[in-house]
Amino acid sequence: MNNEQMSDVFSTLSQAMLPAVTQEMRSVLRANQTQTDLFYGMLHYHMGWVDEKLQPAQVHAGKRIRPLLTLIACQAAGGDWQQALPAAAAIELLHNFSLIHDDIEDASHTRRGRLTLWKIWGMEQAINSGDAMFALAHLAMARLSQRGVEPLKVVNSLRRFDETCVQLTQGQFADMDFEKRAKVSVADYIRMITGKTAVLIALCAELGALIAGADDETTAHYAAFGRNLGLAFQVKDDILGIWGDEALTGKSAASDILTRKKTLPVLYGLDQSWEMRQLYAQTDHNEQFVPQVIAILDEVDARRFARQKAIAYSDSALEHLAAASPQGEAAAALQQLADRLLQRNY
Amino acid sequence: MNNEQMSDVFSTLSQAMLPAVTQEMRSVLRANQTQTDLFYGMLHYHMGWVDEKLQPAQVHAGKRIRPLLTLIACQAAGGDWQQALPAAAAIELLHNFSLIHDDIEDASHTRRGRLTLWKIWGMEQAINSGDAMFALAHLAMARLSQRGVEPLKVVNSLRRFDETCVQLTQGQFADMDFEKRAKVSVADYIRMITGKTAVLIALCAELGALIAGADDETTAHYAAFGRNLGLAFQVKDDILGIWGDEALTGKSAASDILTRKKTLPVLYGLDQSWEMRQLYAQTDHNEQFVPQVIAILDEVDARRFARQKAIAYSDSALEHLAAASPQGEAAAALQQLADRLLQRNY
Repeated sequence: MNNEQMSDVFSTLSQAMLPAVTQEMRSVLRANQTQTDLFYGMLHYHMGWVDEKLQPAQVHAGKRIRPLLTLIACQAAGGDWQQALPAAAAIELLHNFSLIHDDIEDASHTRRGRLTLWKIWGMEQAINSGDAMFALAHLAMARLSQRGVEPLKVVNSLRRFDETCVQLTQGQFADMDFEKRAKVSVADYIRMITGKTAVLIALCAELGALIAGADDETTAHYAAFGRNLGLAFQVKDDILGIWGDEALTGKSAASDILTRKKTLPVLYGLDQSWEMRQLYAQTDHNEQFVPQVIAILDEVDARRFARQKAIAYSDSALEHLAAASPQGEAAAALQQLADRLLQRNY
Repeated sequence: MNNEQMSDVFSTLSQAMLPAVTQEMRSVLRANQTQTDLFYGMLHYHMGWVDEKLQPAQVHAGKRIRPLLTLIACQAAGGDWQQALPAAAAIELLHNFSLIHDDIEDASHTRRGRLTLWKIWGMEQAINSGDAMFALAHLAMARLSQRGVEPLKVVNSLRRFDETCVQLTQGQFADMDFEKRAKVSVADYIRMITGKTAVLIALCAELGALIAGADDETTAHYAAFGRNLGLAFQVKDDILGIWGDEALTGKSAASDILTRKKTLPVLYGLDQSWEMRQLYAQTDHNEQFVPQVIAILDEVDARRFARQKAIAYSDSALEHLAAASPQGEAAAALQQLADRLLQRNY
């Protein structure tokens, strides 16, 4: 199969799956009722379905990579993707719960070009809205039973779902803790992004396989595929956050340096260069800060270090995918999804 | 059986059950490991197991009414209370999750005589700690499988757990919303306290019965017993918040009036008296505010109105308990627990 045909497979599957995921989420969040109160209205706003006045809106709400991965993995593992819809919806709602709380914790005023929930309705209500979204994500999971998934599988899926939730909060804990710490090792950092990003991508592929009825070994390969995919994608994002093309990334080049974000290339630079540690120890910076940091990072070859890490994770992801022996057109679609996320344009 | 013996039954059961609940919660929150990181340490602090420096502490952490009700209801419905331990622990952890977030939302500086979690470690980490406690409460529920509870019962218990979580957030939403609203009806208020307090007490009794294997009708009576018990207790608390004996309630008399809390007697007064509405419309109050409000409440007989409500809920609770036909010494213990909570000293 050539690239063009593979692209068609992914697009064809996505076109069938995305409206079904949206429908499932809307049903859980009671978005199809004629009257909506503010309690659900705030959640609909966050999802991009209504505006600040709770009037219908059409806002681009992300690529929905997570639910697509869940459903395609289910089909590739021999299952019926429609059975996995509640899990796909649950994971997307869980992701959105974490965004609501992250926006408060990071004091972010905007998301996807709109005011964040807490900026409109206040921090107090936004904390509670996030809690509601978290509970509703669990109720989405509970709908697996209605799709004929047997109770033992539902229990096991829910346990993995909540173990992942705990890891997500551990990742967020570490991320906030890093800002205050003078020394963060590369190993600390990998642990943090594993919790904050990779475990959720891993859960997508894992639950897809689990619901399809894959054996434990195959399910573990799907999970490892997702985890490495998530790690590779995050490290790639770190590279683009420093050396990325503004026109492609949508954020100003070197923005991660200006905000002093402790990403992988920066941590490597801090580890390798005394000069870099001196620079980061200063609290106020002049215009030369960004070019000075980049010069040091180039000197210690931080980009190459990060690139090697990203490639290692990419390779590992693809090895686990092969070991999982995905079947049919969904196998091609998974490969295509991975290729898109792992494009080596960095 | 006379009162003295009943008291013995409740005490005897509590003495066996409480250490088991604590042990179950400590296991879920990894409190028995030799090394504790700050992530779990903050949760242990909130539970009263360690101090600010994460050194062992012994702090009175509430009466643990909720887990006791869960376990005693399970036994009264013919079950083995040890099987319900994960649910009892989960409900207590869920309650504590909501306290962590409520303390942020209400800007409370202290709880049970100690600084609140967010006052020590900051609002950002405290939001995340609450999220972690929420996820861990779900993992506590997942341990029902390890106690031999069949998967279908675990799935049904988890669904009821999360439906209750959504109702709790709806109750908290309404509570915060009321502070901004000029007009709150008695019906609005009952709906709010149902969500904020009563549904969780209902869940305790319901899950106890469900795990014991009670039929749907009996389980519904246990739930209704808990719900009415919770409502009666909350309305009683409202009365004591205005007319309570400082020595018994631990808070200064009429404190709810000073803080302008919209409790049942106040809402009744606002509905009945134009003078009261005028008083509450003013933003700064002189020393005469509290005595003036109490004079109006006495004039419109607000205490009697609230007392009648509390008695109606109490009676309904006890009727549902009788209809549930609880068995053995646990039946006496449930009656005793209800009598303690519903004592008519108001």
